[in-house]
Amino acid sequence: MIPRYSRKEMASIFEPENKFKIWLEIETLALEKMAQLDIVPQSAARTLREKGAFDIDRINEIEAEVKHDVIAFLTSVAEHIGEDSRYVHQGMTSSDVVDTCFSVQLKQAANILIKDLDKVLNALKKRAEEHRNTLCIGRSHGIHGEPTTFGLKLAGHYAAFKRHRERLVRAREEISICTISGAVGTYATINPSVEAHVAQAMRLKPETVATQVIPRDRHATFFVTIGVIASSIENLAIEIRHLQRTEVREVEEYFDTKQKGSSAMPHKRNPIGSENLTGQARIIRAAVIPALENVALWHERDISHSSVERTILPDALISADYALNRLAGIIDKLLVYPDTMIENLEKMNGLVFSQAVLLALTQADISREDAYLIVQRNAMKVWEEKGKMSFKDALLSDSDVTEKLDKGKLESIFNYKNYTQHIDSILQRALN
Amino acid sequence: MIPRYSRKEMASIFEPENKFKIWLEIETLALEKMAQLDIVPQSAARTLREKGAFDIDRINEIEAEVKHDVIAFLTSVAEHIGEDSRYVHQGMTSSDVVDTCFSVQLKQAANILIKDLDKVLNALKKRAEEHRNTLCIGRSHGIHGEPTTFGLKLAGHYAAFKRHRERLVRAREEISICTISGAVGTYATINPSVEAHVAQAMRLKPETVATQVIPRDRHATFFVTIGVIASSIENLAIEIRHLQRTEVREVEEYFDTKQKGSSAMPHKRNPIGSENLTGQARIIRAAVIPALENVALWHERDISHSSVERTILPDALISADYALNRLAGIIDKLLVYPDTMIENLEKMNGLVFSQAVLLALTQADISREDAYLIVQRNAMKVWEEKGKMSFKDALLSDSDVTEKLDKGKLESIFNYKNYTQHIDSILQRALN
Amino acid sequence: MIPRYSRKEMASIFEPENKFKIWLEIETLALEKMAQLDIVPQSAARTLREKGAFDIDRINEIEAEVKHDVIAFLTSVAEHIGEDSRYVHQGMTSSDVVDTCFSVQLKQAANILIKDLDKVLNALKKRAEEHRNTLCIGRSHGIHGEPTTFGLKLAGHYAAFKRHRERLVRAREEISICTISGAVGTYATINPSVEAHVAQAMRLKPETVATQVIPRDRHATFFVTIGVIASSIENLAIEIRHLQRTEVREVEEYFDTKQKGSSAMPHKRNPIGSENLTGQARIIRAAVIPALENVALWHERDISHSSVERTILPDALISADYALNRLAGIIDKLLVYPDTMIENLEKMNGLVFSQAVLLALTQADISREDAYLIVQRNAMKVWEEKGKMSFKDALLSDSDVTEKLDKGKLESIFNYKNYTQHIDSILQRALN
Amino acid sequence: MIPRYSRKEMASIFEPENKFKIWLEIETLALEKMAQLDIVPQSAARTLREKGAFDIDRINEIEAEVKHDVIAFLTSVAEHIGEDSRYVHQGMTSSDVVDTCFSVQLKQAANILIKDLDKVLNALKKRAEEHRNTLCIGRSHGIHGEPTTFGLKLAGHYAAFKRHRERLVRAREEISICTISGAVGTYATINPSVEAHVAQAMRLKPETVATQVIPRDRHATFFVTIGVIASSIENLAIEIRHLQRTEVREVEEYFDTKQKGSSAMPHKRNPIGSENLTGQARIIRAAVIPALENVALWHERDISHSSVERTILPDALISADYALNRLAGIIDKLLVYPDTMIENLEKMNGLVFSQAVLLALTQADISREDAYLIVQRNAMKVWEEKGKMSFKDALLSDSDVTEKLDKGKLESIFNYKNYTQHIDSILQRALN
Repeated sequence: MIPRYSRKEMASIFEPENKFKIWLEIETLALEKMAQLDIVPQSAARTLREKGAFDIDRINEIEAEVKHDVIAFLTSVAEHIGEDSRYVHQGMTSSDVVDTCFSVQLKQAANILIKDLDKVLNALKKRAEEHRNTLCIGRSHGIHGEPTTFGLKLAGHYAAFKRHRERLVRAREEISICTISGAVGTYATINPSVEAHVAQAMRLKPETVATQVIPRDRHATFFVTIGVIASSIENLAIEIRHLQRTEVREVEEYFDTKQKGSSAMPHKRNPIGSENLTGQARIIRAAVIPALENVALWHERDISHSSVERTILPDALISADYALNRLAGIIDKLLVYPDTMIENLEKMNGLVFSQAVLLALTQADISREDAYLIVQRNAMKVWEEKGKMSFKDALLSDSDVTEKLDKGKLESIFNYKNYTQHIDSILQRALN
Repeated sequence: MIPRYSRKEMASIFEPENKFKIWLEIETLALEKMAQLDIVPQSAARTLREKGAFDIDRINEIEAEVKHDVIAFLTSVAEHIGEDSRYVHQGMTSSDVVDTCFSVQLKQAANILIKDLDKVLNALKKRAEEHRNTLCIGRSHGIHGEPTTFGLKLAGHYAAFKRHRERLVRAREEISICTISGAVGTYATINPSVEAHVAQAMRLKPETVATQVIPRDRHATFFVTIGVIASSIENLAIEIRHLQRTEVREVEEYFDTKQKGSSAMPHKRNPIGSENLTGQARIIRAAVIPALENVALWHERDISHSSVERTILPDALISADYALNRLAGIIDKLLVYPDTMIENLEKMNGLVFSQAVLLALTQADISREDAYLIVQRNAMKVWEEKGKMSFKDALLSDSDVTEKLDKGKLESIFNYKNYTQHIDSILQRALN
Repeated sequence: MIPRYSRKEMASIFEPENKFKIWLEIETLALEKMAQLDIVPQSAARTLREKGAFDIDRINEIEAEVKHDVIAFLTSVAEHIGEDSRYVHQGMTSSDVVDTCFSVQLKQAANILIKDLDKVLNALKKRAEEHRNTLCIGRSHGIHGEPTTFGLKLAGHYAAFKRHRERLVRAREEISICTISGAVGTYATINPSVEAHVAQAMRLKPETVATQVIPRDRHATFFVTIGVIASSIENLAIEIRHLQRTEVREVEEYFDTKQKGSSAMPHKRNPIGSENLTGQARIIRAAVIPALENVALWHERDISHSSVERTILPDALISADYALNRLAGIIDKLLVYPDTMIENLEKMNGLVFSQAVLLALTQADISREDAYLIVQRNAMKVWEEKGKMSFKDALLSDSDVTEKLDKGKLESIFNYKNYTQHIDSILQRALN
Repeated sequence: MIPRYSRKEMASIFEPENKFKIWLEIETLALEKMAQLDIVPQSAARTLREKGAFDIDRINEIEAEVKHDVIAFLTSVAEHIGEDSRYVHQGMTSSDVVDTCFSVQLKQAANILIKDLDKVLNALKKRAEEHRNTLCIGRSHGIHGEPTTFGLKLAGHYAAFKRHRERLVRAREEISICTISGAVGTYATINPSVEAHVAQAMRLKPETVATQVIPRDRHATFFVTIGVIASSIENLAIEIRHLQRTEVREVEEYFDTKQKGSSAMPHKRNPIGSENLTGQARIIRAAVIPALENVALWHERDISHSSVERTILPDALISADYALNRLAGIIDKLLVYPDTMIENLEKMNGLVFSQAVLLALTQADISREDAYLIVQRNAMKVWEEKGKMSFKDALLSDSDVTEKLDKGKLESIFNYKNYTQHIDSILQRALN
């Protein structure tokens, strides 16, 4: 994590302050339930609720000695509440606290990311509607295909991010898990109702079978979900970068009046936001393999996953939060140039209607194979002259064509309206 | 994919035969709908339904020339049905066929994998119930922790695979998608009701917004889900490998009477099944990054994803199918040695009760910190003598302990029953 | 591996035939040395050398029973040579044969890949020299930067592939390793001179310390090297795809007269070769993580690496061989359009000289900051009009500029020659 | 990067302070050469050398506005040196500074990592020599194989890390690269001798062909090399974790007297160092895929690589430095229990000699196949009784054996010395 690419709200989830606060709440809720069950004195629970506190410097000091973070934390809490500390954490194992806390943190992170996705969705929807009928060329293989609209392009990305939102809601559900089941998950030293109480109070569900830890297939599922989102961020970022390249220039990222594009070349306006997002996608996806490798812990658990979860996984979430916000901003302020879109669309001088001509010919009783050859041979002429000749003219001078299709028919084929007739209904389906 | 690790049913999904059969069905259904809409003659649709066929060798021959697989296929079909072929594929783009077919293949694969998961679940459930009360040691960090049962261990894996089943059902849903929307997804040359018809007939859903292709975040979601399953396969495989290692030997993979463990050492019985599964997990997960890299296609699509989908992705599914089946077999026939489990459990001569003693001391009015030191100092004595001295005896000779806990109390603590009291309710929750 | 993307020479390395041939040679060489040391009869070595043979179907049959491939192989050999078979493999362990064979296979593969790299290097060199002075625009961020030449572009890729050749030669060296050291690498049952003999005869080096196997950091090093090569293949493939996109179209992949670009759109000529290479790069890199995960085997070895090495690793090599050959072909036959390159270069009407103007101003006593603002403000005018106004004219009408730079000075700045003055010396350095 | 897993020396390489210091040195050296070439005044170079300085807060302030880090840096330097600042960076592009600096940073990091590897090598060598003859069991598949020595085990890891040292020295060489070649690598605005001067002064080599940047295949090679090292760290860490597990316990990580193994179970001494290293390996390897994805930049460069290089790559290096140091400490202080090694070695009551018996039988004129069956059938008896019966006794009561091998022969076979006869020569080869 580096400050440059981190937003405060997300970053603070992984700060010690937040972590220890959650730890304290888990211990307090657990103790309250134990008090209710008469396992510990009521007064102990009250003391912890009222005086419970910790000191981060002190925790670090103790941990340097005992080399165990939960013990260090408990000792610091004990220094605040005195004698009653003996009842705290009773029958629990460190992972009960650490893992339940990690669930809470992931849920907090998911909540932010869902809000982030909503920002992206809002921006995409607004711009998709705005450019619903903004004609542009659709490209496959980087080559002009057929006309489409810029709104439809954005609507496709909207639909992808909407799927992501649903996936993330499910992934959040999967990780909203509590375990307070003791050293190897048998509840041997802790009443299961303690877990139930903590879970309910923190809006989590108890783990079906914890070992010592919450099984890491849940966390892996969470992080691969984030990884897929990263790939869709990359997808949209690359679209923008393509559309902004000098020869295309159908859109540009907003460029601040005081911004400088290059230390050497004062003429530059680069899509650095989208380029950055492309890199962020790599950063986010870097968590995927480690998260998968974290699943196969030894027996009831080993602690190899822990350093990964302290390092790579927050990085991925902080980057995801940064990237989604930056993406929303880029889309929201994107400069769109409909005139250039039309210019580019017409660059191949009608070639984009080749399929329509092909269809008309086959419907006029020419075999598909022959029709293909007829259209292709005219298309290649236009292609090789880079659109200096018009495709319609080429066809009109080919008797194999004109025998079957008269000029009026051709005119009706060379009509962008044919390509936008279903845009409204697709957008209706996509944006609602 | 290599025959050694592939099962026929799964492998055949990715054979040309199956692929072209699905292509033909898609084209036929589409044509039938077009006939119904009076876009093409009814007779054409009937001809295709009745005489539609293809010849794989011929397709390969044509493809070598035109370098386009769908055109090669259509030409081969044309050679079977004659003149009506002109109506086939009308207004459609290759991806309409290829991508819808890929959806069907992934769905077929998912169906098999779900059956595979059921085999694993059944085996795990059977053995979990069988060993519900088979005591063994629970280990964290590879070090003895506290008693548990072998049934609980298996129930934990059962719960993980049950989660996987749910995830895979959802992933199948996500990929059960049809697109017949033309060159850049605008339906410019094809009526949307054709897509609706094909989708319904093939039990798929129409894509919200296709570009030229079905967006690859769907496929990525499918393959990362398989990747997480792979990690759980690895997790269980590693558990078995650990339990079979010579010093532990609580279980053994079934060893055929004619089997040979080593060319050099005739005494060997190795957990080669589980070791193989560990490798298979790596093979399956190898699809994850390529699947994620496949999402960011250029504009309305580029074809970079295609070679990946022809190579790595079937490999992953074939391996997953093989691995789940092999895993089910290993669990089903696993040799379990309860006596050795008890032997190992008692190896540390009572140390596994250390937490229980700690709790009893804190409940007897010693601070957690002091109690910890008292228990630890006795534990370390036993530890260093590798269990030659009994932990109970050590405690009984420590006056700081006996002042607070009498012999009867200690006896009640050193009781395995304390650790199995909740097993039934956990298994109830997990296995149903 | 799928036939579509595999070349015979490379694929055959991983066929059973080749593998068993190498196994037989290793066993024969080892036996010959043992005979020379009088550990086994001379006649046994002669028999194996003369009559040694195997039968693949028979091996498969036996393996199905004993579940051990080396034992199955040895049994098949025994069926060919009779009684003397007792001496074969004496004191050796399976991995001595399997791992030494894998080294030979990787060396064979490396030899092919080095030849492949040479093909790519030759094609790049030829085209780089051909287009040494073919002016085109250099782009950063996808945005026009400054003039360069197409030859220099290609020379950069040449330099990268030359580095790869050196890396691969080293990686081949690293993997040219023999081990014949017995069950756990102690030579307890085999004289070290046997290993030395086999190694020398097969042009390998003995492993420093084998466990049972050759340590997998060697293989990992080999496959990560291939992975980096894949990324450079991708890099060049993406360059071509960019240059071929409709709006740029400075190059085109060779397009066969009978080729069809799209089933729907007869006008299409797509860079499918380079797109395929982009996918192949993903396939090749898919071996990287599994190869790294294969390093940490348990104790003296476990067999988890084996299935990975049977599946993913050959796939990566077969893909790498295919990709490098296809790349060489694409470069060799690439259609290059120098006129379009000039057209694109001039598209921004002189903006590409912005840095040169900036430098001239700073040298004429304007501070860098002021000069930057002056140039940028003129550049942005041209930029916003998309090159309809000439940058030179804009500058000439700005008195802050003309005060410092007269028209003659500006003319001398707006000269492509300034950008190509060092091309020859760079190419001299790169291509030799 | 989190403080918990970072060492100051390595972390400071990636601090802004170090980065800007290197930037300043590059600019200064470049200016000095330009002055020598009479391109800029001598006094300007002297001013920069003498007064050149920067202010990090100020840089951040400026960057927030201009959104370009190098421009912000240059402005801050300008504020320190005044008018002469106009000559600074003249004809250079940002990447000339940024990329050359990154090379220097990677070289600094490599230097530390090489020292770290030396620490690991020293620790391994010391302990390998100390335990040269410490007998223990060698295991394949986690199953007892044949005797070896603990020194030989360590020597194998020594050899691997020695290979890594050589690889890292080469990777450092590969990345010790300077580029000062201007906006698209043509030296259009900067004399190549400036690059040569900076390179020589900073002990780097000029890039063969820079585009705008140093090609990322160099950096990828560097990070995949680190990734392979990570896997060997994991390999050794897993060996220790295995040897420390309760049932084996042949070694233990040093356990501080004040250390606490578990908050719940006071008896625990866990191999947390090695477990942590297992996780660190995942963290380090997380850089591999992003580094590979960074290679394929668009045209002369895009900036997608930059955020990856700011985030993941330093993380990997900081983790690698931490991990190697921790590993050296673990090996250095590792508690080794030779008695337990002997106990475990003898656990299978002689089975580990099975191959030796097999060899003796085949040398006594029994076919390999028959001998295998004879030995296996006796071995399985011992195996099934878990070593309660002695393998030697089993053989002595099998007439098929005693017919061929008398008791004296068997005694000579059941001798550990046979397994250690070559240890000295292997260690001689490995450790020197």
